[in-house]
Amino acid sequence: MFTTNPYDDDHLREECGVFGIYGHPEAAALTALGLHALQHRGQEAAGIVSLDGDKFHNHRDLGHVEDCFGSENVIRKLKGAKAVGHVRYSTTGETLLRNVQPLFAEMEFGGLALGHNGNLTNAQALRRSLVKRGCLFQSTTDTEVIIHLIAISLHGPVEDRVIDALRQIDGAYSLVCLTGEGLMGMRDPQGIRPLVLGKLDGAWCLASETCALDIIGAEFVRDIEAGEVVIITDAGVRSVKPFGDTKRRFCIFEYIYFARPDSIVEGTSVYDARKRIGAELARESFVDADVVVPVPDSGVPAALGFATEAKLPFDLGIIRNHYVGRTFIQPTDQTRHVGVKMKHNPNKATIQGKRVILVDDSIVRGTTSRKIVEMVRQAGATEVHMRISSPPTTHSCYFGIDTPERDKLLASRYDVQGMADLIGVDSLAFISIDGLYRAVGEPGRNSHSPQFCDACFTGDYPVIPTDYMDGLTESKQLSLLTDPKK
Amino acid sequence: MFTTNPYDDDHLREECGVFGIYGHPEAAALTALGLHALQHRGQEAAGIVSLDGDKFHNHRDLGHVEDCFGSENVIRKLKGAKAVGHVRYSTTGETLLRNVQPLFAEMEFGGLALGHNGNLTNAQALRRSLVKRGCLFQSTTDTEVIIHLIAISLHGPVEDRVIDALRQIDGAYSLVCLTGEGLMGMRDPQGIRPLVLGKLDGAWCLASETCALDIIGAEFVRDIEAGEVVIITDAGVRSVKPFGDTKRRFCIFEYIYFARPDSIVEGTSVYDARKRIGAELARESFVDADVVVPVPDSGVPAALGFATEAKLPFDLGIIRNHYVGRTFIQPTDQTRHVGVKMKHNPNKATIQGKRVILVDDSIVRGTTSRKIVEMVRQAGATEVHMRISSPPTTHSCYFGIDTPERDKLLASRYDVQGMADLIGVDSLAFISIDGLYRAVGEPGRNSHSPQFCDACFTGDYPVIPTDYMDGLTESKQLSLLTDPKK
Amino acid sequence: MFTTNPYDDDHLREECGVFGIYGHPEAAALTALGLHALQHRGQEAAGIVSLDGDKFHNHRDLGHVEDCFGSENVIRKLKGAKAVGHVRYSTTGETLLRNVQPLFAEMEFGGLALGHNGNLTNAQALRRSLVKRGCLFQSTTDTEVIIHLIAISLHGPVEDRVIDALRQIDGAYSLVCLTGEGLMGMRDPQGIRPLVLGKLDGAWCLASETCALDIIGAEFVRDIEAGEVVIITDAGVRSVKPFGDTKRRFCIFEYIYFARPDSIVEGTSVYDARKRIGAELARESFVDADVVVPVPDSGVPAALGFATEAKLPFDLGIIRNHYVGRTFIQPTDQTRHVGVKMKHNPNKATIQGKRVILVDDSIVRGTTSRKIVEMVRQAGATEVHMRISSPPTTHSCYFGIDTPERDKLLASRYDVQGMADLIGVDSLAFISIDGLYRAVGEPGRNSHSPQFCDACFTGDYPVIPTDYMDGLTESKQLSLLTDPKK
Amino acid sequence: MFTTNPYDDDHLREECGVFGIYGHPEAAALTALGLHALQHRGQEAAGIVSLDGDKFHNHRDLGHVEDCFGSENVIRKLKGAKAVGHVRYSTTGETLLRNVQPLFAEMEFGGLALGHNGNLTNAQALRRSLVKRGCLFQSTTDTEVIIHLIAISLHGPVEDRVIDALRQIDGAYSLVCLTGEGLMGMRDPQGIRPLVLGKLDGAWCLASETCALDIIGAEFVRDIEAGEVVIITDAGVRSVKPFGDTKRRFCIFEYIYFARPDSIVEGTSVYDARKRIGAELARESFVDADVVVPVPDSGVPAALGFATEAKLPFDLGIIRNHYVGRTFIQPTDQTRHVGVKMKHNPNKATIQGKRVILVDDSIVRGTTSRKIVEMVRQAGATEVHMRISSPPTTHSCYFGIDTPERDKLLASRYDVQGMADLIGVDSLAFISIDGLYRAVGEPGRNSHSPQFCDACFTGDYPVIPTDYMDGLTESKQLSLLTDPKK
Repeated sequence: MFTTNPYDDDHLREECGVFGIYGHPEAAALTALGLHALQHRGQEAAGIVSLDGDKFHNHRDLGHVEDCFGSENVIRKLKGAKAVGHVRYSTTGETLLRNVQPLFAEMEFGGLALGHNGNLTNAQALRRSLVKRGCLFQSTTDTEVIIHLIAISLHGPVEDRVIDALRQIDGAYSLVCLTGEGLMGMRDPQGIRPLVLGKLDGAWCLASETCALDIIGAEFVRDIEAGEVVIITDAGVRSVKPFGDTKRRFCIFEYIYFARPDSIVEGTSVYDARKRIGAELARESFVDADVVVPVPDSGVPAALGFATEAKLPFDLGIIRNHYVGRTFIQPTDQTRHVGVKMKHNPNKATIQGKRVILVDDSIVRGTTSRKIVEMVRQAGATEVHMRISSPPTTHSCYFGIDTPERDKLLASRYDVQGMADLIGVDSLAFISIDGLYRAVGEPGRNSHSPQFCDACFTGDYPVIPTDYMDGLTESKQLSLLTDPKK
Repeated sequence: MFTTNPYDDDHLREECGVFGIYGHPEAAALTALGLHALQHRGQEAAGIVSLDGDKFHNHRDLGHVEDCFGSENVIRKLKGAKAVGHVRYSTTGETLLRNVQPLFAEMEFGGLALGHNGNLTNAQALRRSLVKRGCLFQSTTDTEVIIHLIAISLHGPVEDRVIDALRQIDGAYSLVCLTGEGLMGMRDPQGIRPLVLGKLDGAWCLASETCALDIIGAEFVRDIEAGEVVIITDAGVRSVKPFGDTKRRFCIFEYIYFARPDSIVEGTSVYDARKRIGAELARESFVDADVVVPVPDSGVPAALGFATEAKLPFDLGIIRNHYVGRTFIQPTDQTRHVGVKMKHNPNKATIQGKRVILVDDSIVRGTTSRKIVEMVRQAGATEVHMRISSPPTTHSCYFGIDTPERDKLLASRYDVQGMADLIGVDSLAFISIDGLYRAVGEPGRNSHSPQFCDACFTGDYPVIPTDYMDGLTESKQLSLLTDPKK
Repeated sequence: MFTTNPYDDDHLREECGVFGIYGHPEAAALTALGLHALQHRGQEAAGIVSLDGDKFHNHRDLGHVEDCFGSENVIRKLKGAKAVGHVRYSTTGETLLRNVQPLFAEMEFGGLALGHNGNLTNAQALRRSLVKRGCLFQSTTDTEVIIHLIAISLHGPVEDRVIDALRQIDGAYSLVCLTGEGLMGMRDPQGIRPLVLGKLDGAWCLASETCALDIIGAEFVRDIEAGEVVIITDAGVRSVKPFGDTKRRFCIFEYIYFARPDSIVEGTSVYDARKRIGAELARESFVDADVVVPVPDSGVPAALGFATEAKLPFDLGIIRNHYVGRTFIQPTDQTRHVGVKMKHNPNKATIQGKRVILVDDSIVRGTTSRKIVEMVRQAGATEVHMRISSPPTTHSCYFGIDTPERDKLLASRYDVQGMADLIGVDSLAFISIDGLYRAVGEPGRNSHSPQFCDACFTGDYPVIPTDYMDGLTESKQLSLLTDPKK
Repeated sequence: MFTTNPYDDDHLREECGVFGIYGHPEAAALTALGLHALQHRGQEAAGIVSLDGDKFHNHRDLGHVEDCFGSENVIRKLKGAKAVGHVRYSTTGETLLRNVQPLFAEMEFGGLALGHNGNLTNAQALRRSLVKRGCLFQSTTDTEVIIHLIAISLHGPVEDRVIDALRQIDGAYSLVCLTGEGLMGMRDPQGIRPLVLGKLDGAWCLASETCALDIIGAEFVRDIEAGEVVIITDAGVRSVKPFGDTKRRFCIFEYIYFARPDSIVEGTSVYDARKRIGAELARESFVDADVVVPVPDSGVPAALGFATEAKLPFDLGIIRNHYVGRTFIQPTDQTRHVGVKMKHNPNKATIQGKRVILVDDSIVRGTTSRKIVEMVRQAGATEVHMRISSPPTTHSCYFGIDTPERDKLLASRYDVQGMADLIGVDSLAFISIDGLYRAVGEPGRNSHSPQFCDACFTGDYPVIPTDYMDGLTESKQLSLLTDPKK
C-alpha cells in the first residue's frame, strides 16, 4: 500500500570524490570546502584525516559534507597543515561507518591515510590470498586491499611500498595518500577517473575536479596524468611514472553527467562540452517543435545547445523542487505520478498545446522517463519528442560507477523504437558515439584504440573485470556483521 | 576568525504556507505532500493536525516536511479523513516547537486547529487586553490571539465565533481551521496572502498555491476571494462574506519571488509573469552585451524573458551548488569569497571575455549582489550590467514576510547610481512600478487605489501597522522561558 | 512471546517532590542537588525555574534529575538567586514534556512558576467551568487549574490571588510558587503531603523532605504546618493561615515506604519509625524461624527491628541488583522467574535448609510477593513466613499516590489467609492499624478523629474525592493530541 | 569552580565479564540476561555476537546492558542458538566502540568472535612484532593480539590455532570464543580470573560468575579449571589441558569486592566469605562501640559478620542514594561534602551520640574514607573506628583490574597509623593476610607457594608483568585517531 522511495531518479551514480592539501594552516577547513564542492560525487558519507606533526586526526561520518564537517568543533580537532578527504556514495548494504574513507592504518613506519575514487577489478582475488596469509580485514571496501598490500610490502620507503601495491592492483583508481613522508596522488594507467593538481599560495592541492579548487580560490595547475604518481613534500612536487607511458582512456560519461558543469576536465569545459553535445544532437536528429524543454537540472546545457542549433525556443517546461522528497509515503489510489511530482512539476503555461522536445542526458532503466513523458502529455503537450545527450547505455560499469545489472538497462533489451514505444514518445533519438566524440574534441571514435573509456555504451572495457568474470563477490560476513549505523 | 552562516542569501522570505483537506481517506499523507510542494514558503518547521471522528491527532516538528512527515509511522498515527497542515519559516529566536502550527486548543465545543499564513498588525494590543482578562498564552505567535478570541467569544456556533474573532483582528491572514463542524478557509479583506480551493475526487482542498494541488493530482477550482470565508462540511462548500465586498490588494511580490514558478496565482501563471517582467525590463533598460546570465535559480525566468526580448544569448554563467552549505567554517585569510562560492560558482567558459547582463529578482541588503559581481568579474567578464526584476525595495513588510529593518534595506539609503557603485556594476536598472503592473496584466499602477499590495516598494500600506506604530513588540518572557529546542 | 517490563515492582508510588530556594547565588545548582535527593519521589521528569532580576529561566526534561541537570551548561543558563524545582512520576500516558513542572505562566503582574506535590480532588470540575469561561489549557495536570484560578483572580497582590485560588481547590497539595514578589510555600489544610523549611547561610529553602536539606548542607528549621502559607521575601519569612487552625492528617504511608529512611518527617526519624514498626510486628506476630530476611531495599529497617525484637538472626537472603533491568526481553519457555531475578537473586548460602521470615513493607497486587516466595523456596528454604510492615492496602489513594484501581488491590479481594494461600507462604501477617500508630508515637488510632491519613488502609478519606465520585476524569483530547515525547 | 564527577568512588574496578551459550533457541536473549547479572563487572559497554547456521550477527554499544540490549529489535536481529557476550569497564581514553568486545574477525576458516576477561602482560611486545609482519590492528585492546595470533597460525583446525595462540600469551585471561566449530572457554594457567560452566536444559553456558547462571535458571556444573580449555560442540563438552597441570592462583580480591555476594566462586559462597572475613576482623581488632555501621553497599556482609562476632548492634548509619549522581555540578562555597552526599547520607537517628565502628571493604586512595568519616562525625558520632575487610592495598594489579599508579595507593605511602591520622578515625585496622586466607578456607597463606593471587597486597605477582617492566605502553596513534564515540 505505502512505498518509500517512490521516485526513482534513474541515473548512473559516481561513487566517490577525493581531495588532498599539503602545507596550509587551515588544511582541514579547506578540505571540507573542497569536499562540499565535490558533494555531487558522493552524498552518503564523508571523511577527513589530517596530520599535525606526527599525529593523525580523523573524523568520518554518514551524511552530507555539511552535516559531517559543518561544526567548528569538528574542524578544530582536525589539526595540522596536511589533510586528505573523501566523499562517498554506495549502495545501501554497504553504508557502514567502517567503510567510510579515508581509510587509516598504523603500519610499521607510522600512520597512512588513503582515499580512493574508482573501483579495482581484481580486489576480491587479492583479498582472498591476503586472508589466507592471516590478514584481517575491517571493511568491505576494495580500498582496504591496497592498505594491506602496502603493509606487507617488503620494499623500503613508503613511496616504494605504495608503488609495489599499485603494481598488483587492476582497475580504476584516483588515489590520495597521506603519510609522514608526504602527500601522494595517483591515477591508474588508463586515467579512467579524474584527478587534478592545484596551488593555493604555498600549498599544493589534489582534487577530483577543478570546482573544488575554485571554491577555495586555488589555481588550477594541471591534470595528474594517466599512470602518474605525484609525491608532494616540503621540497615540492615530484612525479614518477611506474608504468612508463600508458594510453589514456578517460571516462567519457564524466562529460555527459558526472562532473559538475563548471569544472574543466582534461582540458575541456564540461558545460561547453554539454552544449556541443546538444548541438550535435540537434544536427543528428532535428525535429520540428514549438519548444525545447530540459529535464532539470542535468539536461539544461544540452537543451540550450540543442535549441540554439535548432533555432527553437528554449523554455523551462518542467519545474524542479529542490527539496529532496525521497522518503514520502505515496498514496495509492487515484493520485497517480505522485512519485515523479515530488521532484518535478510540469509548467503548464509553457507546455500546453505545444509540440515539445524533451532533452535529457541518459536513459538507464527508463522508469522515470516514462513518467515524465506522461506528466508532460497530461499538462497538454500535443507532441513529445525525446533527445538524449548520450548513446544508449547498454553495459554495466566496473570502474567506480553504480550501474544496475545489465538486464535492468533498458537499452540492453530494446532497440530505439522499442524504447520510444515503452516511454511513450512520438520520437526518440540518442546522440551517436561518433557525434559524442566530436563534441568532446575528437574527429570521431578510433575503434582500434578508443580515446576514452566508453564501455557503458560499447562493452569495450579498457581493463578486463576479472573479479566479475570469475564470479568473485565481496565478503558477505563482514557486511552482515556490522551494524549499518556504525 | 571563524564565522558560521557566511553566505547571506539576501532575499525577503515568505513566512508560511497552509494546506487543508476534507473528506479523503488518506488526508494526512496528502497534506504532507501538499506541504512538501509548499516547502519554499517555510523551511524551519511543519505540522499536521488530523481529525478522525471526534478525535484529533497531531504531529509537529522542526525541520523540512520530509524530516517531519517522511516516516510511515508518523503518517499512520494521523488518522482521519480531515486534516490541516502548515509550514513555517521564522527568525531564530522564535523557532520553538510550541510556536509550530497548526495551533490546537480544546474549547468548550471541542477541539480546534488553526494554521495561519500572514501577520496580524494589532496582535500585541489584543494580546495585552487578553492577558489582563486572565488569558494564559502558550506561544509567542500572533496566531494564538485568534485562538483566544474564539475561545472567549459569546457567539454560538463555531462559525460565528470564528467570524467574531476575524472582526477584531487586522492585517494579513490566509487561514485554515479544522473543527468538528468542518474545515474553514479564510482570507483577510485585502486578500494579501494567497489561498486556493481545489478538488480531488470527492474531497475538497485548500492550499496556499496551486502547486500543492498539482502534486496530489487535485483539480484547481478557484481562488478564495479577499474577505471570503468558506466552510466545507459533508454538505459541500458554503461561502460567507462577513466584511461585504472588499477591495483586493494581493501581494505583488508573490509574482516576483515568493510563489513557485509553476503556480497559477490569482489567475496568472507565475512563470509567465516573470518572463513578462524580464521582457518589460529589457524594453525599459536595454544594454548591449554578449550574454544574459541569470542569478540562479530565481532569476532564470526573468533572464529568459529579458534575453528573448533583447535578442541576446541566454546562458548559465553561474552554476549553483544545491547542497546547502550554510554552516561551513570560512577560512579567513587569502581565500576570498568562499561564502558566496558555497552556493555559486562562475562558469568561466561562458563568462570569460564577455559583456555580461546579470538578471536577479531583487536587491535587499545588497551584500550578496556585490560578491556575485566581483566573482563574475574575476572569472573574466569585461563588463557587468545588472537588471533587477522588481522595483527598489525601500520599505519593510508587516504582512507575513521576513524583512530587515528599514535602514538595512540598500534602496532606502541609496539611489540607483549609489547602489550601482556599491555593488560594483557598470550599470544597474530596476523595473519600474508601472512596468511591473503591466507585466502582471494591469495597464499600470492606479495610484489612488492600487490594485496590489506593493508597500515594500512604495510604503503605501493597505492596513496601518498599528502594533509597529505603537512600539508594541512581542512578549519577551515566554520566549525567554522556553528552551529553543522544544 | 516477548514481553517488556516483565518485572512488576508492585509498590504504591509517590508522584512528586518539590524544592525551592530564595537568596543563594547558586540557586539552580542547589535546587538540582535537592531534587537529586528527592529522586525517589519521582523518576520520570524534572524541572527547574529560576528567577534573575525580573527574568525567568527554565529547563524541564524527561528522565532522572542527573540526566536533566547534570550538565554545567544547563545549570549556567538557569541564572538567579531564586529557584523552584520539581520531580515527577506519572503513568505512561501522561509523560509529556508539557506536563513537566514547575508550570510557568505569564500573567498580568508578570511570571509565576508553580510546583505541586499532591493531587486535587475537584480539579476536573473546576477545569470544566474554566474552559466554559474561555480558558485554554496547555497540559492535563490538575496543577494548571491552580494557575488559571490565579490568572483570573480579581484580587490584588500576588499573595491574595494565590490564596483566592487555594480557597477554591480541594485535596492534597504541598506547593512551591515563585514570582517577582517572592517564594511561597503552602500545604493543604490537612497537611497530607510533607513540606519543610530550611536555612542555608542567608538563604531559605523549601523541600519535600529533610534529606534534600542535608545534601546541600542546609539546616532544618521546621515543618510547614497544615493549612499554612509561608511567604519568603528579602524581608524574611512570613506566615499566613488562610484556613485558620486546621486538623493535621499527614499521610502515614510516608513513614512506611515513601519517604527516605534518613529523613525526619513531622518530627520523627523515618528509619527509627520503620524499625519500631518491625518491632511492633514481631510482638504482634512472632513466629519461630532461623533467619529474618528483608525484601531489599525497603524492607531492611523493619526487618532489623523485627529481628532484634524477635531475637532472631538478621541476614541478607535476597541480593538486589541495582542495575535497573526493566526493559529486558524475557525468554518464554523453560526459564521461569526471569522477571523477578532481573532485580533479586536468592542468596542460597543464607537460605538453604532454613526457616525464613521475609519482611516487606506492603502488598499491593501481590504479584511480586508470590514470585519472591517461590524463588526463596527454590533456593532451599524449608518454611517461608511473610511479615508486612503495613496494614492490608484495601483502598485507592486520591491524594498524589499512584495506586491501582481498587479491584486490583489484593487485600480488597482476599482476607489474610486467602492472601497467604495465593502468595504461597506458610504464614502471613500484617501490622495492625493500632500497632502502626503506636510505632509512630501515638497511643493508637483515634477512630473519631484519626491523627493521620490512612485511607488506603481504612477507606476513611480526609477529603471527599468529588471528581472521582462524580465520574469526572481528565480531559482526553489534550493528551491525545500531544506527542508523548514533547 | 565547578567540577564534574565530584565524588570519587575509590574502589578498584573489575574490568570485564564474559558469557557464552551453545544450543539454545533464545541464545541472544539469555546472553543479554547473563550480562545484566554481570553488570557489576563492567558498566561502560556491552556486546553480543550470535551465530545462526554460518552467519554471525553482532551488536555492540556503549552503556549498560539494558541500554544496549533492552530492545526487542536488537535481540531479534541476533539470530541463532549460539552466542557470546561481554561487558566492559575501561578508563575514559579507551572507551571506543571499536574496542567493545566480543571482537570479531573473518579468517580463512570463517568467522571468530572472542570475549576476554583479564589482561595480558606481554601484549605490547607481541603487538610490535605482529605490526612488523604487516598485521593491521583495528583496536587498542590486548585482546586483538590473540585474534591476530590465531589468524596467522599455521596449525590446522580452529582449536589448534587457538591453543597455538594461547601458548604465546602471558597474563590473566578467561576467554569465550565462538566459531563455526563450536564454543570454547579458556582460563590462563593460574586461573586468575573466574569462569564457570553451566547447563540449561540441553544447552551449555559459560559465565564469569554463577549469578549469571541463576538469572536464566541454569544449573551450575563446575568451575573451568586453571589452564583448562573446554570445547563445546553438538557432541558435548570436551576438555583439553594444553599446559598440563598448573598451580591455581585465583584472585583473592574477587571474594573481597569484585564478585557478587550471591555468587559461588571456586566452591565458596562470596557472601559467606565476606561474613567470615568480618568475623575474623572482629576477632583480630575488636573495639568496644555502640553500633557497627557498614559503608553501603559493599561493606554490609562484613559488617554483619563483625557485629555478630563482636556481639555489637548492627545498624544502617549511612543511607545510600542509588540514583547515580556522578555528573552533578558541585557548588563551591559554604556547602561542603556535597560530593560524598550525592551518594551517602548519614542517618543521624542511628549515629548521634554513639561510638561507631565503620566497616568497609578496602581503602584505595583514601579520599572517600576521609569524607565519610567527617560526615559521620558531623552527624554526631562520639567515636569513629574503621575496620577494613582487606589487607592494605599496596601494589598495582596487571591482571584485569583497574588500579591507580602505585604512588596513588594510600597504603603504599603510609603505615596504618599514618592512614588513620589522614582519614581522621579514632582507630583503624585491616584484616591480616593470614586472617583473609583463613576466611576463605585455607589454614593461612603459604608464602612459598601462595594459594591465591594477592599481589595487590603483597607485590608477589604470579606472572611477571613484562610489558610494564619494559615500559611498553599501548599504541597511541590508533586511540588518537578514533572518535571517542565510535
